[in-house]
Amino acid sequence: MDSPLFARAALIGIGLIGSSLARAMRRDGLAGHVAVCTRRDSTLDEARGLDLGDSYTTDPAEAVHGANLVMICAPLGAYAAIAERVGAALMPGCVVSDVGSTKTSVIRDLSPHIPDGCHLVPGHPVAGTEHSGPAAGFADLFRDRWCILTPPPGTDPKATALVAALWERAGMSVQVMDPEHHDRVLGITSHLPHLIAYTIVGTACALESDLQKEVVKYSAGGFRDFTRIAASDPVMWRDVFLNNKDAVLEMLQRFTEDLTALQRAIRWGEGDVLQHHFEKTREIRRGVIDMHQAGTFLPTESDGP
Amino acid sequence: MDSPLFARAALIGIGLIGSSLARAMRRDGLAGHVAVCTRRDSTLDEARGLDLGDSYTTDPAEAVHGANLVMICAPLGAYAAIAERVGAALMPGCVVSDVGSTKTSVIRDLSPHIPDGCHLVPGHPVAGTEHSGPAAGFADLFRDRWCILTPPPGTDPKATALVAALWERAGMSVQVMDPEHHDRVLGITSHLPHLIAYTIVGTACALESDLQKEVVKYSAGGFRDFTRIAASDPVMWRDVFLNNKDAVLEMLQRFTEDLTALQRAIRWGEGDVLQHHFEKTREIRRGVIDMHQAGTFLPTESDGP
Repeated sequence: MDSPLFARAALIGIGLIGSSLARAMRRDGLAGHVAVCTRRDSTLDEARGLDLGDSYTTDPAEAVHGANLVMICAPLGAYAAIAERVGAALMPGCVVSDVGSTKTSVIRDLSPHIPDGCHLVPGHPVAGTEHSGPAAGFADLFRDRWCILTPPPGTDPKATALVAALWERAGMSVQVMDPEHHDRVLGITSHLPHLIAYTIVGTACALESDLQKEVVKYSAGGFRDFTRIAASDPVMWRDVFLNNKDAVLEMLQRFTEDLTALQRAIRWGEGDVLQHHFEKTREIRRGVIDMHQAGTFLPTESDGP
Repeated sequence: MDSPLFARAALIGIGLIGSSLARAMRRDGLAGHVAVCTRRDSTLDEARGLDLGDSYTTDPAEAVHGANLVMICAPLGAYAAIAERVGAALMPGCVVSDVGSTKTSVIRDLSPHIPDGCHLVPGHPVAGTEHSGPAAGFADLFRDRWCILTPPPGTDPKATALVAALWERAGMSVQVMDPEHHDRVLGITSHLPHLIAYTIVGTACALESDLQKEVVKYSAGGFRDFTRIAASDPVMWRDVFLNNKDAVLEMLQRFTEDLTALQRAIRWGEGDVLQHHFEKTREIRRGVIDMHQAGTFLPTESDGP
């Protein structure tokens, strides 16, 4: 086992991602001391029961005291308040990072509160399951997945390298990216798919009750994948959509135009339009499979605990 | 092993479903003789190489000669021509069934060609993977899945019972349903999810090329499930949408209204609307999980070969 990257790490938020990182930190000796912080007493008790850290508090300022790394693992909507609360308590040289699914909003919310001499390195480990809470985490969640870092211009490269090393030692491949670019890429690969899954499950939910029961019964026909995605954490996803509004609305507009074109082809019985479109999408799938075979193997989303 | 249900069965079409049924028939001794028929010589050779049947032909009339069961496993768009071709060659007492994903269109296309004394029992084994062709099939595809039968009014109950027994011995639970009801239920649980998956993968495919590569790279964020669904057989799905137009367009209209409402909530920053909606959809997921735990275990869609 290599030596710890951080003498003391504070995890602010201990849900699926935070608790998975805590487990990876413990297993791989990535931090000398792991301070666990969460808003609710009940969640903190749960984290303590799972033995996720070395110390526990509901006070973020206490958690970050003396920390070399502060990792924010809370819903995006809580970032500004957390940053305001901890800013003055950060130790000089401290690296502040996060695991949020949007990145421009994170820089907007955190950077005003990071004192000179501390380093902001926003990050997004692209990994997850539809489960949430401290008990849902597992150390292998990050294995063979991508982590995107979006350090603002002028960030000390050493700070970025430290955060990169953390995720690499947790099993991830790290890529540095412009935050706006991140938000557009994830807007189409993650945020829009979640929005659509949430929508269609809601649409089914609103059907006449005799249909509804059968929707559940015959969900194997494609719908079940959507119900799984649509079971993801409601507060986390609310905050994703509120904090990546522009990119999500742009991708949604493109999607709606394309859907309308297919709808029209169905209405007018234009079989060749449909077939041509469906053949194109097969190619993308091949790209996804090829990339995974060429690189590291990625398990399916449902390979959670 | 029980005795064969049919002395001679003809499979018209030998793709994913047809070849899976052929394998189940051979494994479980469900038919004394399995006649395999497909349009293309190359596919027939493939089926022969896989030893899927007892006889092989590209002539549907030859395949159904002397058959007690004719199972149509071709794309829905080929049904009318197949029925016209085989109608006069059907043996008295023969049961004609199918595996198509829509059911009112099947009755419309087949019934005019079924002679008196033969029995039409349309069926839909709700099972599949994104793979297609004879080599993609496997005998366990049907295990612990639902099969829906939609016999028209006046169908001989003995004919329906025979088809039910076939699928039950292949591992399915059978339910008899009104064909219009079937088309609405599958419209929301299967056809609309496929249409949406095809759409979003196409939308991503049309993005600027620098984004496109990263869409594939970061597909683990939810998009990958959609690419898998959108890799399903293009011709089969073209025909599904053309043959279940009314139900698909109705469900699509409901979906679009719901999506527009969420889009509006994102634009106006109405976090409570989003959160409330996302919490509701979690309940549906619980329903899906409960039903599967209460009944038989259903493997994930991707549990193909």
